[in-house]
Amino acid sequence: MRSSAFDFSALFARSLPAPAVKWTGAPRFSFVGGNNDPDVVPVDALRAAADSVLSREGNALSNYTVNTGPQGYRPLREFVAQKLKRDAGISCTAEDIVMVSGSLQALDLVNAVLCERGDTVIYEQDSYQGSINRMTRMGVNVVGIPLDEGGMRMDALSNALADLKARGVRPKFIYTIPTVQNPTATIMSEERRRELLKLSEEYGVPVFEDDCYADLIWSGKRPPAIYAMSKTGGVVHIGSFSKSVAPALRVGYIVAPWEILSRVLSLKTDAGSGALEQMVLAEFCKPHFESHVPVLRSALRSKLETLKESLNEQFGTAAEFQDPPGGIFLWVKLPDQVDAMRLYQKALAAGVAINPGPEWSVDAAHSKSRIRICYASPSHEQIREGIAVLAEVCRAEFGVPARSANVQKRA
Amino acid sequence: MRSSAFDFSALFARSLPAPAVKWTGAPRFSFVGGNNDPDVVPVDALRAAADSVLSREGNALSNYTVNTGPQGYRPLREFVAQKLKRDAGISCTAEDIVMVSGSLQALDLVNAVLCERGDTVIYEQDSYQGSINRMTRMGVNVVGIPLDEGGMRMDALSNALADLKARGVRPKFIYTIPTVQNPTATIMSEERRRELLKLSEEYGVPVFEDDCYADLIWSGKRPPAIYAMSKTGGVVHIGSFSKSVAPALRVGYIVAPWEILSRVLSLKTDAGSGALEQMVLAEFCKPHFESHVPVLRSALRSKLETLKESLNEQFGTAAEFQDPPGGIFLWVKLPDQVDAMRLYQKALAAGVAINPGPEWSVDAAHSKSRIRICYASPSHEQIREGIAVLAEVCRAEFGVPARSANVQKRA
Repeated sequence: MRSSAFDFSALFARSLPAPAVKWTGAPRFSFVGGNNDPDVVPVDALRAAADSVLSREGNALSNYTVNTGPQGYRPLREFVAQKLKRDAGISCTAEDIVMVSGSLQALDLVNAVLCERGDTVIYEQDSYQGSINRMTRMGVNVVGIPLDEGGMRMDALSNALADLKARGVRPKFIYTIPTVQNPTATIMSEERRRELLKLSEEYGVPVFEDDCYADLIWSGKRPPAIYAMSKTGGVVHIGSFSKSVAPALRVGYIVAPWEILSRVLSLKTDAGSGALEQMVLAEFCKPHFESHVPVLRSALRSKLETLKESLNEQFGTAAEFQDPPGGIFLWVKLPDQVDAMRLYQKALAAGVAINPGPEWSVDAAHSKSRIRICYASPSHEQIREGIAVLAEVCRAEFGVPARSANVQKRA
Repeated sequence: MRSSAFDFSALFARSLPAPAVKWTGAPRFSFVGGNNDPDVVPVDALRAAADSVLSREGNALSNYTVNTGPQGYRPLREFVAQKLKRDAGISCTAEDIVMVSGSLQALDLVNAVLCERGDTVIYEQDSYQGSINRMTRMGVNVVGIPLDEGGMRMDALSNALADLKARGVRPKFIYTIPTVQNPTATIMSEERRRELLKLSEEYGVPVFEDDCYADLIWSGKRPPAIYAMSKTGGVVHIGSFSKSVAPALRVGYIVAPWEILSRVLSLKTDAGSGALEQMVLAEFCKPHFESHVPVLRSALRSKLETLKESLNEQFGTAAEFQDPPGGIFLWVKLPDQVDAMRLYQKALAAGVAINPGPEWSVDAAHSKSRIRICYASPSHEQIREGIAVLAEVCRAEFGVPARSANVQKRA
C-alpha cells in the first residue's frame, strides 16, 4: 500500500462516499454480513461439478458468455426456472431470466432502469442496509412502511400510497423482502401478498421482490412468490445462490418481463457475469441443490438455537426478539437506553462486530436500540463467547443487562 | 420471454440506452469481441487447479471475500504483483492491487472516482468501443489524440493539453492502451512513454493505463508499463486475465496508489468479485501462466497469418493494414468509398460480424472506412470463409475489392 506524490484530490468526482479504511482482518467475533457456515459448503460436490463441467465445456470459456448469450449460462437459467416453479410457484422459462453477479448487481441494474435522483420508492421500514444505501447514493427518497409479525403492514402501505398520490408522487417501486425479511425475518402471508398486489395495481407502482432468503425456511414451506401471484406482470423478482450455496460465488438472477430485462441487459455492460461460477453452480445444483438445502437449514437452525440460548443467558429479558422461521440473522430489541450505534462502536473495539439498527432501517428512531446479529458464520463456541463479550460491553456502557441477567431468564 | 400487461414505460429513468434486442445466437462468422481461441483454453490445468484449490480452501467460499478482504483473493493479488514485476517492471505488492470483475469493472470504478458529467478526458483517437461508450453514457467529453505507428502522438497530445489549459479545462485523465493498442495494435515506445509522463506531470493530468493485451506480444518483449516508469505515482494501471487465460473468467485488476484504491473500494459495493474464479486462476497461474502464454501467442499468431493471407487473397490492395506485433485484432483501412457502418450492417445480414471503425473511434470521419477484425475466436477455416463472404458483400455494396483483387496481391 503506497501513496502518491501526484495530487489526485482536486480531480475526484464530487460527492464520492468516504474512502475505504484499510482492511486489517476480520474481528474476533463477526456477527455481520451474509457470510455462511463454512462447514456446510458442499466442497466435494462442487469439486466434482467443477471437474465434470470443465471437462465437458471448458473450451467454451474462450467466449465471454460461453456461447449461451448475454442472459447468462443457459443450463443455470434452466435450473433456476425449474427451481422457481417447484419452490415459489413461478411459471417462467430460461428466456425470462438474466443471471447477474450476485443480487447486489440485480439491485444496481433494476434501480438504474427505474430510478433517478429525486425519485421516490417504498421500502419496508427496517430493510437491508445495502439496498437502502444504494437509494441514498442515488439521491432517491425512501418511504418506510412499518412491519409487524406478518411483514410490511398493508394498512400503512395503503395510507402511504394515497398520501404520495395526493402529493402528485408516483413511487418507482415497492421494494420488499417478503420471505424471511431482512432484518426482521418475518414472512408475508399469501393473503397479505394479494393485498400488496392489489395496491400495486391500483396505484400503478410495481413490486420489486427480493427473495434471497426464501430457501432458508426451517419448515421448508414458503408462500408463493409475489411474482407468481401477479396477473399483470408488474413484479420484478430477484434471487441469489449466496445464501443457499455460498456467498463467494457471486451468482444471482432477475426474473422479469422482457420490458424490464431488455433494459437491464442494455445497462449490463460487464461482458457477462463470471461463467465458471455459473457453470459449476448449474452442474452442482441439478443433482444436489434439493438435498443440500435441508442440510444447510439444519445447521443454521442449530446455530440459531445456540444464539437464542446465549442471548437468554447473557441478556435475559433485556434482549427481545421474535423466534425467526428461517434465515441467518436475528433482529434484537435492547432496552431503550441502549444507543445501538454506540454499542456497535464499543463492541467492535472489543472484537465483536454487530449491525446497529439505524443502519438497517429507514427510521433511525425506531431502530435506535435494535441490532442485527448474523449467526450463520461464527461457530457455536464463537456465538457463545461473542454474545458474552457483547453483554459485557453493553452492561459497561448502558447498565443493561443487569449483572444478574443470567437468572432473569425468560419463561 | 414474456411481456407484461403492467405498463412500466412511464416509470423508466430518463436517457436509458435503447433496450437490448433478443439474442438469437452467434453469427456464422464472428470477427468481433475479445473472445479467444477455444482450443487454447488450458482446460486440464484449470480442472486440476479447481480441484486442488477447492479441496484446500473450498470452505472459505462461505465468506464473501474468502477471508482475504475486499481487495480480492490474496494469492491472486500476490501472483499479479509478481507477474507485473517480471513482465512490466512494476514494483508493487498485493496491497497495491484491487481485484475486479474483469477490466470493464475497473473502467467503471476508476471512471466513477474521477469523472462526472461535463468533465473532459483524453483518449487515443481510435480506441476501445466499450471505453468510449462509457464516457458517452456518463456525459464526459472525449478529446481524441491521433495515433501513428508508435501509438498516441506526443506532439498532438502536447497541443491538446495546451489548448485545453488555455480554455481553463483540466482533463481528468489521459486514457491509453499503450501496449498493443485497441484497435491499432501499436506499441508505444519507452521514449514516448517518458514524454507522456512528462506531459502528464506538467499539466497535472494522470495517466489511465489499460494494459489488457500486453501479454500477447509475439516477441514476448514489451516496454515497461507507464505505471512502472512514473516517479510521481500519477498513473492508474489496469489489466485482465480475459485475454491471457479466458474471457469468461471475469477477473481483472487495478494497480494504483491508495488515494485511488481507497476510493475505488468505497464504490465497489458488490460484496467482492467472484472468488471461485480468482481462486482457480491463482492456482492455475502460479505454475502454468508463464508456459501457457507462449502457446496462446503461437496459436493467435498463426490465425493472424491466416487472416492476412485471406485479406490479401480476397481484398488485394483494397485492404490496408500494418502487421500487428501482437494481440487479437487487425485494424483495416478499406478504400474511401466504403462506408464501414453500412458494410457492417450488410455483412451481418450475410452472417459476418465485424466492428465498424466509427464505433471504435472518437473521430468518425477518420474511421469511416476502417474496420476491426478479431481473429482469435474463429477457426482458420472460418477466417478464410468469412473473409471471402465479407469481400463479396463489400464488392456488391461498394465495388471494391475489384473482382480481380485476388491477382492484385501486395508485393
